[in-house]
Amino acid sequence: MAREEKVPKKIEAFSIKLPPIEEGDDLGKMISKRLDLMDDDILVIAHTVVSKSEGRIRRLKEINPGDLAFEIAKKKKEDPRFVQAVLDETKEILIDHPIFLVEANCRNICINAGVDRSNVEEGYLILLPRDPDASAERIRRRIFEMTRKRVGVIISDTNGRPFRIGQVGFSIGIYGIEPIRDWKGKKDIFGKKLKITEEAIADELAGMSNILMGEGDWLAPVVVIRGLSILSDEKKGIKRIYRDEGKDYIRMAIKNFYSQ
Amino acid sequence: MAREEKVPKKIEAFSIKLPPIEEGDDLGKMISKRLDLMDDDILVIAHTVVSKSEGRIRRLKEINPGDLAFEIAKKKKEDPRFVQAVLDETKEILIDHPIFLVEANCRNICINAGVDRSNVEEGYLILLPRDPDASAERIRRRIFEMTRKRVGVIISDTNGRPFRIGQVGFSIGIYGIEPIRDWKGKKDIFGKKLKITEEAIADELAGMSNILMGEGDWLAPVVVIRGLSILSDEKKGIKRIYRDEGKDYIRMAIKNFYSQ
Repeated sequence: MAREEKVPKKIEAFSIKLPPIEEGDDLGKMISKRLDLMDDDILVIAHTVVSKSEGRIRRLKEINPGDLAFEIAKKKKEDPRFVQAVLDETKEILIDHPIFLVEANCRNICINAGVDRSNVEEGYLILLPRDPDASAERIRRRIFEMTRKRVGVIISDTNGRPFRIGQVGFSIGIYGIEPIRDWKGKKDIFGKKLKITEEAIADELAGMSNILMGEGDWLAPVVVIRGLSILSDEKKGIKRIYRDEGKDYIRMAIKNFYSQ
Repeated sequence: MAREEKVPKKIEAFSIKLPPIEEGDDLGKMISKRLDLMDDDILVIAHTVVSKSEGRIRRLKEINPGDLAFEIAKKKKEDPRFVQAVLDETKEILIDHPIFLVEANCRNICINAGVDRSNVEEGYLILLPRDPDASAERIRRRIFEMTRKRVGVIISDTNGRPFRIGQVGFSIGIYGIEPIRDWKGKKDIFGKKLKITEEAIADELAGMSNILMGEGDWLAPVVVIRGLSILSDEKKGIKRIYRDEGKDYIRMAIKNFYSQ
């Protein structure tokens, strides 16, 4: 059951640093030990540390590109092994060139399926978690074991978007909160039905948290947001946020145009 | 000159309420009187109150729809006067049906050019500010006159986005801050060049602020964000954030598909 929603007067948000993360590291424990968590805290965690703790790293020189990877790599003047890594993480290609926009296996639509050379050792690639909702759930449960505090967890990545330059943080996995705040049936200040009926609060929180994480060498991959009451016990995950293909008019246009 | 950027450890954000706004209301003064502003505060202001203070309201029954408005209204089963109001605010139509996606005169790409029936009296429509950067500048200057504090101003609207359901807050006008944080030349934790080079912080802040504003009848249209040092004296406005048409691969696909 979702708790009753109210608009808070004030929130605070702060970032915390973690040591370099390796496969098998217990993120829930590491986070719990670094601050005094409170019920209703929302933790936004950069996927990079989650991916590393889950061993979602590939070594470039161990990748054998197939024909499609060579074909796309030629158009893009890109390393075919990198392209193969993207293809391995891809459910559907939307545009292969000049940008490489795909639906990743975890359903996020993003450039390069989230595969990245940054924030990982030279010669390696970092991938998205295999199931970011499950990762968020695991971390949430571990934190509860350690602290007995009920928190919400958002796993974030940084993506571009159409029409506007600049990347922003998005949620790619969640546990313990609703991704969407539902305004259906609510009225405006004149008693009329609201135009805005669904607000993507998980993405709004992931975006702001990105500012506190930074992208540089002082990376602080965890942000705590305090003051919201948006926890939910319903286990819905992020999947609800992705549009059905048949109702995604922009996806249809892209597929049509770039498959010509 | 932009001040030196640093990643803050902590921010706080809180919303403030305003009385119902009418044309000619002095928003800068109203905001200044309601709290003790500090240097470096960022104010995120819902465009609805800015639009109202600027008289950007139209009465439906005073609108005479033209042929194109009737044609689109028929496809959409929409009031042709509403469609005409959207067309009057539109620079270019990207999709007219089943969604009405346009580039608004102020360059934001959004549904219905931001024209809205919510949060305004029955029989009226609320429009976007004519020049949201200029609106932000006016409010910023008035606040400085009143308080001698240097703040940044973001005017926000709530828009949908491709691929994901749910609306989020976006910046449509700014003054006194950079819309983009530039990471070019910065290194990752392994000393490598970053993939993410431009972060759309104005949008990330507008998104989070949306959560604190609410959309309902307890509307709190101003959010103060405290703890960031992102002010800039350079007068760039939001225009920098919109992609050049020739580099916007998704816009190209949409135009091609829906003009067939």
